[in-house]
Amino acid sequence: MKKAVVLLSGGLDSATALASAKVRQFACYALSLDYGQRHRAELQAAQNVAQALGVAAHHIIRLDLAAFGGSALTDTGIAVPVDGASTGIPATYVPARNTVMLSLALAWAEALGSRDIFIGVNAVDYSGYPDCRPEYIKAFETMANLATKAGIEGEKFTVHAPLMYLSKHEIIKAGLDLGVDYSLTVSCYQADEHGRACGVCDSCRIRQAGFVAAKKKDPTRYMSVQ
Amino acid sequence: MKKAVVLLSGGLDSATALASAKVRQFACYALSLDYGQRHRAELQAAQNVAQALGVAAHHIIRLDLAAFGGSALTDTGIAVPVDGASTGIPATYVPARNTVMLSLALAWAEALGSRDIFIGVNAVDYSGYPDCRPEYIKAFETMANLATKAGIEGEKFTVHAPLMYLSKHEIIKAGLDLGVDYSLTVSCYQADEHGRACGVCDSCRIRQAGFVAAKKKDPTRYMSVQ
Repeated sequence: MKKAVVLLSGGLDSATALASAKVRQFACYALSLDYGQRHRAELQAAQNVAQALGVAAHHIIRLDLAAFGGSALTDTGIAVPVDGASTGIPATYVPARNTVMLSLALAWAEALGSRDIFIGVNAVDYSGYPDCRPEYIKAFETMANLATKAGIEGEKFTVHAPLMYLSKHEIIKAGLDLGVDYSLTVSCYQADEHGRACGVCDSCRIRQAGFVAAKKKDPTRYMSVQ
Repeated sequence: MKKAVVLLSGGLDSATALASAKVRQFACYALSLDYGQRHRAELQAAQNVAQALGVAAHHIIRLDLAAFGGSALTDTGIAVPVDGASTGIPATYVPARNTVMLSLALAWAEALGSRDIFIGVNAVDYSGYPDCRPEYIKAFETMANLATKAGIEGEKFTVHAPLMYLSKHEIIKAGLDLGVDYSLTVSCYQADEHGRACGVCDSCRIRQAGFVAAKKKDPTRYMSVQ
């Protein structure tokens, strides 16, 4: 079996990306980043998802991005927007987070002899982060093939973004077809330590709307009744 | 003063890159990576160099690249070549290391409001690593400007590689002119805990030859008399 490194945050999208890699017959090496995020419950969710979907290995790498600051997700002094009315790039943007995570995935992939990386980014129902766009993923792939021993020896890394052009409800339907148990996933930016969601941050709003549009039961556990 | 993030390994090249950023009037934010390298003495060297050259701040970020394996620099089961006769990319290559380090520099730069990153890579007297070549640096810069909030808001990140086209002896002469104290730096891949060099690994050989060609006194401390 070919090996793939799959970035697994513990949220809905990355769980679906993992299921997508599995159905393509990859042996999956899941990589999660403990970067000082306030919603640490997603790391437990990542472990639960990795176990449920059956990965070859799961690494949680510690890296203190909170030391750099600049994001509501790593700095408790910056509030997570909850009014659903943001324009532009929101305060939850973490500078260069996907670049750091893809770089780590690339490092692991090359060491494993894998040439395939999966990331659950999406440019349809998303929060407007620059590092979720197709042109960004393409540029990372180009850079990766110049960066690595494998790349200059003529082998090619592929960064798969299987959810890129799907709407949230299409992602949910695809994931359910692939057997993803979304009750294990945590999308909320300010989930409590039990993984219960706030229901009002951008990530919760997009997720909720996705289950409604997919006409599927929303298995999310909320802090209080919505 | 404009801010720059400078990757500082503690070796000869990155110390010179830092001096080069300073002479260009940047306030320098030095970033070192504790990635599980066997030559940990370079981290103490990085601190000494940062202090000697006067940086605005110095972060040493911990990140366990050794968990991925695949390099003589992180896996003590793989020997550091000492015969000076390697061809191709040597065993000391660390998969995607410069990509990981530049990604972290990018994260810090964006959080700081800096648009300038310095890295001491060199494509003349070097070990043949793919992630030291100009086309790689250019591809990283392109990716960085698609990855970031600053990039899509029309500001541009620049990855400065001031040593790219210099030979080792030209780097040494330039650094001495800028006041770099090379006795503080550690280049050896298997330096002991006191920062003393082996004298026979590729990095030592290239450094020694540089001082000879520059006709400058080599201040390197060796484990035994050469």
